[in-house]
Amino acid sequence: MKRIGLDLMGGDNAPGALLKALKALKLPPKNELVLIGTAEYQTSNFDYVVAPTFVEMDEPPLAALRRKKEASMCIGLRLLKAGKIDALVSAGNTGALVSASKMILGNCKGLLRPALLAQIPTKRGLLAVLDVGANVQVKANHLVQFALLGAAFCRANGIHRPRVGLLNIGSEAMKGTSDLRQAYKSLSQKNSFFEFIGNIEGKSVFEGEANVLVTDGFTGNVFLKTAEGVASLILDRFDSLLPPEMNQQLHPRIEDLQRRLHYAEYPGALLAGVSGIVIKCHGHSSPQAIVNAVLGAADLASRDFIQSIKDQLAQQIGVEKEV
Amino acid sequence: MKRIGLDLMGGDNAPGALLKALKALKLPPKNELVLIGTAEYQTSNFDYVVAPTFVEMDEPPLAALRRKKEASMCIGLRLLKAGKIDALVSAGNTGALVSASKMILGNCKGLLRPALLAQIPTKRGLLAVLDVGANVQVKANHLVQFALLGAAFCRANGIHRPRVGLLNIGSEAMKGTSDLRQAYKSLSQKNSFFEFIGNIEGKSVFEGEANVLVTDGFTGNVFLKTAEGVASLILDRFDSLLPPEMNQQLHPRIEDLQRRLHYAEYPGALLAGVSGIVIKCHGHSSPQAIVNAVLGAADLASRDFIQSIKDQLAQQIGVEKEV
Repeated sequence: MKRIGLDLMGGDNAPGALLKALKALKLPPKNELVLIGTAEYQTSNFDYVVAPTFVEMDEPPLAALRRKKEASMCIGLRLLKAGKIDALVSAGNTGALVSASKMILGNCKGLLRPALLAQIPTKRGLLAVLDVGANVQVKANHLVQFALLGAAFCRANGIHRPRVGLLNIGSEAMKGTSDLRQAYKSLSQKNSFFEFIGNIEGKSVFEGEANVLVTDGFTGNVFLKTAEGVASLILDRFDSLLPPEMNQQLHPRIEDLQRRLHYAEYPGALLAGVSGIVIKCHGHSSPQAIVNAVLGAADLASRDFIQSIKDQLAQQIGVEKEV
Repeated sequence: MKRIGLDLMGGDNAPGALLKALKALKLPPKNELVLIGTAEYQTSNFDYVVAPTFVEMDEPPLAALRRKKEASMCIGLRLLKAGKIDALVSAGNTGALVSASKMILGNCKGLLRPALLAQIPTKRGLLAVLDVGANVQVKANHLVQFALLGAAFCRANGIHRPRVGLLNIGSEAMKGTSDLRQAYKSLSQKNSFFEFIGNIEGKSVFEGEANVLVTDGFTGNVFLKTAEGVASLILDRFDSLLPPEMNQQLHPRIEDLQRRLHYAEYPGALLAGVSGIVIKCHGHSSPQAIVNAVLGAADLASRDFIQSIKDQLAQQIGVEKEV
């Protein structure tokens, strides 16, 4: 039996959107949901852990965590740490969730910083992008570790030797900031774990040559949200271009693509590198997005995903040390 | 009579793509073209200035400029400085073109750094985005000046009080890097020149609430190329979704939208803030992109655009000093 925790108090429309999501949610067999929320929303339909307070969406993260040790997301993370749940889903304050996860769960051994990992569609399949928002500024060694983390994620998903690219403004090794140039150099050293395919520009990302795209949390976040915005712009234009009957026929498919570009819907971003499965959804997630995130978490939990990441990371950091 | 200079040697497919473009080019009345290229491509169909050498696309910019003072783009910039041409179009090495423009033309008075300005479509009209690649790393005061520059561009285009936004990963004032937070604070000070509408996320950009989007050259470049990549991904998906007859009917419109997202095609990026009209096209510009860039340059030249930018910038920097 796997138990998936859901932070009922996180998100711009919490708990409304989350309570709606619960009505649509059908968990696979051998999974159950554990809700964490304030007493007023307690329901007997699910396991419910009462939290006396919660972190507001616009609160400064560190101050909030100091004052609110009993916030819903913190209680959820402690349940995860204690093995009482197998994954935690939250649409709450990103900074607070990342910081609390690091403090309560800790990082996987040897890892300097966790990163938010989102999967996006390309012409050839899914691409794991990290970091998409956990670290606004990073150094070269963080980028190199994100590559390891992304590769471990892909390997846990059955891709033997993932192809890793670095998001940059040109393909030449000298492009970008000094940290990007340094990361390029480090990643170019041969290893048996992944194949470094060099710098990738925003345009080429969607051709699908890479399995992992490495970037800092600021650029990655802009990248994802831009993809979402353009998809919405194009959808909007199509509405006026297509004859109504055609529009009706195509709309579901366009929306499906748009949803996949909307990273939180499919199936939320994984906080990769902390010692437990934490899924972060967009603050303004729809009920469907929450459902998808919970299902995604259940899938990861069923595969003992974190242990597999840890094993591979330990092995790779060992290999790295020998070089 | 306005004379538009074209650097025949710049671009991945130079001079082939450029010579092709010339065949399709129809300049408006009272405009003529001046080509700058090596002797072997000299033609009697246009005014032709022979350049003994040119900057390669992958050459380190500063080293190239030291060694090649007679490169085609440098000769073009000196013609512009001397008033022998009214605008210069180049698809050459971006770093070299930006550096040579600063050295030869100089910046508009009071401006610390020029920025590449591209126009992209939104749901409500065109948006001027800067910087899209001239400055990989910037400080808060550069961002503030980019806002002035973008606003001056919009005002020269008839928008009286442009709405300026800052590209960031959230709308709250405390989001992003310390330079972004500082820029937010400075831009929030009331002024009569533009309206600061705060941080804008990549997703909301395309809603079209802003006339100007301010960002650093790295993020701006990733932003534009991502927009282009997503448009291409969606176009690709549509090809397989639409019945052939519908496909044929819609394709031109989809491609038009895609072209507009492809910043170099429409109509190239303006190097805003140097003392002369310099248009930078993508290295891999199509002949049509080159044609559009030349027409865009002719349009700006016809409106004494640089003088208008200078006047407004001087006025605004005056206002700023009084605060």
